[in-house]
Amino acid sequence: MRFQLFAAALALGLGLGGAAHAQDPFIAARAVSETFEPARPNADQQASVVKRLKALEARTGRKPNILILLVDDMGWGDPGAFGGGTAIGAPTPAIDRIAREGLKLTSTYAQPTCTPTRAALMTGRLPARTGLTRPTLTGERVLVSPWANEKTAAALLGEAGYMTALSGKWHLGEAESDQPQQVGYDEYFGIFSALAEYTQALDERRYPELIFNAERMAALRQLSHPAVMAARKGEKATVATELDSLEKVAEIDQQFAAYSEDFIHRAAKARKPFYLVHSFSRVHNDNFSAKDFKGKSPAANPYKDAVIEVDAIVERLMKKLKDEGVADNTLVFFTSDNGANEDAGSDGGFQPWRGGKGTTWEGGVRVPGIAYWPGMIKGGRESDGLFDLLDLFNTSVLLGGGKLPDDRYIDGVDQTSFLLADNGRSNREAVFMYSERSLTAIRWEEFKIHFKVFQTPVPGSNIDESTLVSTGLSPWVYNLYLDPKEQKSVGHRTFEWGLPRVVGLVGRHMATYRKYPMKELGLAKPVQ
Amino acid sequence: MRFQLFAAALALGLGLGGAAHAQDPFIAARAVSETFEPARPNADQQASVVKRLKALEARTGRKPNILILLVDDMGWGDPGAFGGGTAIGAPTPAIDRIAREGLKLTSTYAQPTCTPTRAALMTGRLPARTGLTRPTLTGERVLVSPWANEKTAAALLGEAGYMTALSGKWHLGEAESDQPQQVGYDEYFGIFSALAEYTQALDERRYPELIFNAERMAALRQLSHPAVMAARKGEKATVATELDSLEKVAEIDQQFAAYSEDFIHRAAKARKPFYLVHSFSRVHNDNFSAKDFKGKSPAANPYKDAVIEVDAIVERLMKKLKDEGVADNTLVFFTSDNGANEDAGSDGGFQPWRGGKGTTWEGGVRVPGIAYWPGMIKGGRESDGLFDLLDLFNTSVLLGGGKLPDDRYIDGVDQTSFLLADNGRSNREAVFMYSERSLTAIRWEEFKIHFKVFQTPVPGSNIDESTLVSTGLSPWVYNLYLDPKEQKSVGHRTFEWGLPRVVGLVGRHMATYRKYPMKELGLAKPVQ
Repeated sequence: MRFQLFAAALALGLGLGGAAHAQDPFIAARAVSETFEPARPNADQQASVVKRLKALEARTGRKPNILILLVDDMGWGDPGAFGGGTAIGAPTPAIDRIAREGLKLTSTYAQPTCTPTRAALMTGRLPARTGLTRPTLTGERVLVSPWANEKTAAALLGEAGYMTALSGKWHLGEAESDQPQQVGYDEYFGIFSALAEYTQALDERRYPELIFNAERMAALRQLSHPAVMAARKGEKATVATELDSLEKVAEIDQQFAAYSEDFIHRAAKARKPFYLVHSFSRVHNDNFSAKDFKGKSPAANPYKDAVIEVDAIVERLMKKLKDEGVADNTLVFFTSDNGANEDAGSDGGFQPWRGGKGTTWEGGVRVPGIAYWPGMIKGGRESDGLFDLLDLFNTSVLLGGGKLPDDRYIDGVDQTSFLLADNGRSNREAVFMYSERSLTAIRWEEFKIHFKVFQTPVPGSNIDESTLVSTGLSPWVYNLYLDPKEQKSVGHRTFEWGLPRVVGLVGRHMATYRKYPMKELGLAKPVQ
Repeated sequence: MRFQLFAAALALGLGLGGAAHAQDPFIAARAVSETFEPARPNADQQASVVKRLKALEARTGRKPNILILLVDDMGWGDPGAFGGGTAIGAPTPAIDRIAREGLKLTSTYAQPTCTPTRAALMTGRLPARTGLTRPTLTGERVLVSPWANEKTAAALLGEAGYMTALSGKWHLGEAESDQPQQVGYDEYFGIFSALAEYTQALDERRYPELIFNAERMAALRQLSHPAVMAARKGEKATVATELDSLEKVAEIDQQFAAYSEDFIHRAAKARKPFYLVHSFSRVHNDNFSAKDFKGKSPAANPYKDAVIEVDAIVERLMKKLKDEGVADNTLVFFTSDNGANEDAGSDGGFQPWRGGKGTTWEGGVRVPGIAYWPGMIKGGRESDGLFDLLDLFNTSVLLGGGKLPDDRYIDGVDQTSFLLADNGRSNREAVFMYSERSLTAIRWEEFKIHFKVFQTPVPGSNIDESTLVSTGLSPWVYNLYLDPKEQKSVGHRTFEWGLPRVVGLVGRHMATYRKYPMKELGLAKPVQ
């Protein structure tokens, strides 16, 4: 019986659940409207938090600032607060400090790769809905802009009176219509793509087959222009720094940091609330140590030097908030866009989980999460409550007094009360995990349920050489408290009571696509 | 050439190195006498620490207390401070607090199983030298006591005026001559063996093939008497609590905690320094939750309930030190006797490393380590410097003003200055890892070098089903900063400069056995 239920629940548009079904008492989330992901009410914590936010606004005279620190490809275990740091040759005292003095979120989830996570964080919608399910590749032309019908948190907060900026890596479309300053950001200073796309044309030790081949280099130059770009709302981006040497590439995060400091200064001076996504190029491969960090990590390796550079920049930005007198009016959220890249060898991160970037094993999607807000978030908190980076959309927009759109499905939930209440519990019921447009797994409470799994020829090896296969008639189930490394499914043994819940959740989730269907990214082939 | 050097270095009694060879400038440790493991001098930190210890003694009027908190089978990653805790369903606020307010040691090493670690910790000598290389099994008779020619830290500190006690698990011999009160401890209150040896005769759900077989039960009863035992120096141990029900077994750590509290109270009242090894029965399988902890961990599982019980006992003992006014005169050292037991399924621990208990992969030997001493160890310290639990012998005896024996080889080194100096560096050059009497691996600085490796049929699976195989002509080498999970040997690629160092260290190490040879544990067969 269970098997058929799953098959039905997973079939797009044939979902079970939804409003027509009686509420399962195991499922705490309640739908408030058909366009919003049902959330756990947690009414008690909500009330106290609203009161405290009002008091803060009365005192500061404005809405709070939001600073999202988004590292690229950092593993869950890289920061010391999550078990890495000193133990693995790259101490992270600044990140550890905000974890200690804020809320350490041990179950924060990203999408399995860069572009989908960034899209989700900015729109509150699953990548399957926006079409931004994977990074576009160098030279791929987007025929229909994915942004044509999407609203970013930056746009909504701009409408609510915020100064908004994106500092650093974008990777959500290079076409003119898709750049940050065209989709809601007042300002943009950064790079369009991932670090490796800038180093490949410069690093003759790693890419000799490209660099010593004049034809390939000429072709690549037609398709991309490696540079740090700058832009103001609605305007055409201009080159800020040509990235024509590895030395220049090595310094870009220092440039981003300086830009973010300046932006914070200007917003504070203007007495306006700000929304700043500080998006590191680090620690995505290929890392080249910035001048001041070269060999400075105990491991003396470019990846580890990049980790301590990220940490130093976190410290710089925390200091800037303080110096500008806005630290106690700023929610800081530190995270990574996906799990460690297991393909990159010593140029990749660390995590205790199974799998890595690109998979929906914990190693691909579970990322460090820290919420820090002196005076508003009590220090020393830790929670394993679910936080999906999608939730930063709702949380940011609502904190800023913006209005969430109600003409599309929003997969994020408002986590303000989870983050701010002294013993706040998560308002999220489950995390839905995808590989492009295919639902592969769910996290519900301490359980992880896989419908499709990524397999590698040698366990623990290169995840690019993986296949995505169905678990067959019944899902694989792991109790992540007891088997955090997802080694032995307990579906049949100890999860009979929970499987119907998962069927219900999946059914309800898939039913949302009937009215709000998935989108495809309309791409032209890279070479026509 | 390298290969022959290794073969020679590894052949017992044919070691290279030693006094006859010029000192390799890469090797910092210096030998002070032929019976002591060479240590790094770190003279600067030594001087300041001696001064501070003298000042403390002048103030308190006595030598400092030493409290060793030794958990059984806890994985490196179980405490929150090491990446587990809340993330895996068992928050550890007390352990995390002493880690935060003390020195978190990320490279602390035990032996791969219980008995060898305890023997090493108490004698400062490698198990290969004492013969205590593996746990004795139920009913095995020791023909020649391993303790006949060994000196424990307890005995040496007793001679120096300390009150000494062992609270909890012993597992270093059940024969009358081998019990704690016969080998140096003033007092003993605990169990002789591992937890599973008490639960097996009681747990009919797990051991029906034993319990429902009258003959087997009768035979077992002839060989063992399950009880908490109590004894005073030189006297015969008596039964304190018959362990004739699972409910009683579940409460033994509460008994040990109460005993330790009482001992601390009596020592404080007597104004005498104490040496207390508080040796948990937890979290070795089979865990049965104590009454007050049953279902109280977020995971609500017996292992996790045991973790939070351990944490609560750490808190109780810290409070007791404070209440008795001796907290600032007590060095507390928290650790585990080996890595997580990967065989025990959900009744085992967590670690991010490869392998588990019984192996010399990091998962078998790398354990949480915390040194805590308010006023003497600056809070917030973290170090990846090497600490071998062997070193607790030298460190304890010397802190207590005792005299280290010089008629045998001592493998421990004094780590007082590492633990106490504000930026203390480890005084240990390398950690030598054994499977019984076979050298399998070395940790030197951030490198791990394997000569023999444990292999399992399915990677990551049951480690009892492992084989110990030679790495062949050349060792496997991992840079643990860059490859903490020991996945890809870099010996030939990037460690050519370091291999000669390892040859030198191994040669010097093996040469010590010429004058101070290995011992065998003289055992009668379990069934004659």
